[in-house]
Amino acid sequence: MKIVVTVMLKDGVLDPQGRAIGHALGNLGFAGLNEVRAGKVIELDLAETDPARARQFGEDMARKLLANTVIESFRVDLPTP
Amino acid sequence: MKIVVTVMLKDGVLDPQGRAIGHALGNLGFAGLNEVRAGKVIELDLAETDPARARQFGEDMARKLLANTVIESFRVDLPTP
Repeated sequence: MKIVVTVMLKDGVLDPQGRAIGHALGNLGFAGLNEVRAGKVIELDLAETDPARARQFGEDMARKLLANTVIESFRVDLPTP
Repeated sequence: MKIVVTVMLKDGVLDPQGRAIGHALGNLGFAGLNEVRAGKVIELDLAETDPARARQFGEDMARKLLANTVIESFRVDLPTP
């Protein structure tokens, strides 16, 4: 089954990439942007078919490799097909 | 209101970053990974409060800057608070 791990910088951590995207959008004429934050999304297709175990597996992978939990937070989603 | 733009490489486009993450997870002992794909997520906080217009705004930004539509596909979500 598919799981989606989304990794974002924690609130309060400076996000230069998001800032740069916000500036670039402003220069292109997009107004009314309060805040822009950038992150990563990792879609994993697992052999595991049990949703609870797949979620646990995703959290383990995020903690061990996908996210730097000092400055990043992560979320594991199980998209409905 | 908040919108979330998710940008992924299109199916069929080689994803070396996803491949590398998959290999690294395998080396860490995570088995049963069929496919791993990596992408970007951009969270935007807009002054706009109308959901339909916010979505349209997100699609315009994705087409103009956030996604390279030759090789990437994007999705605009309005997360429920």
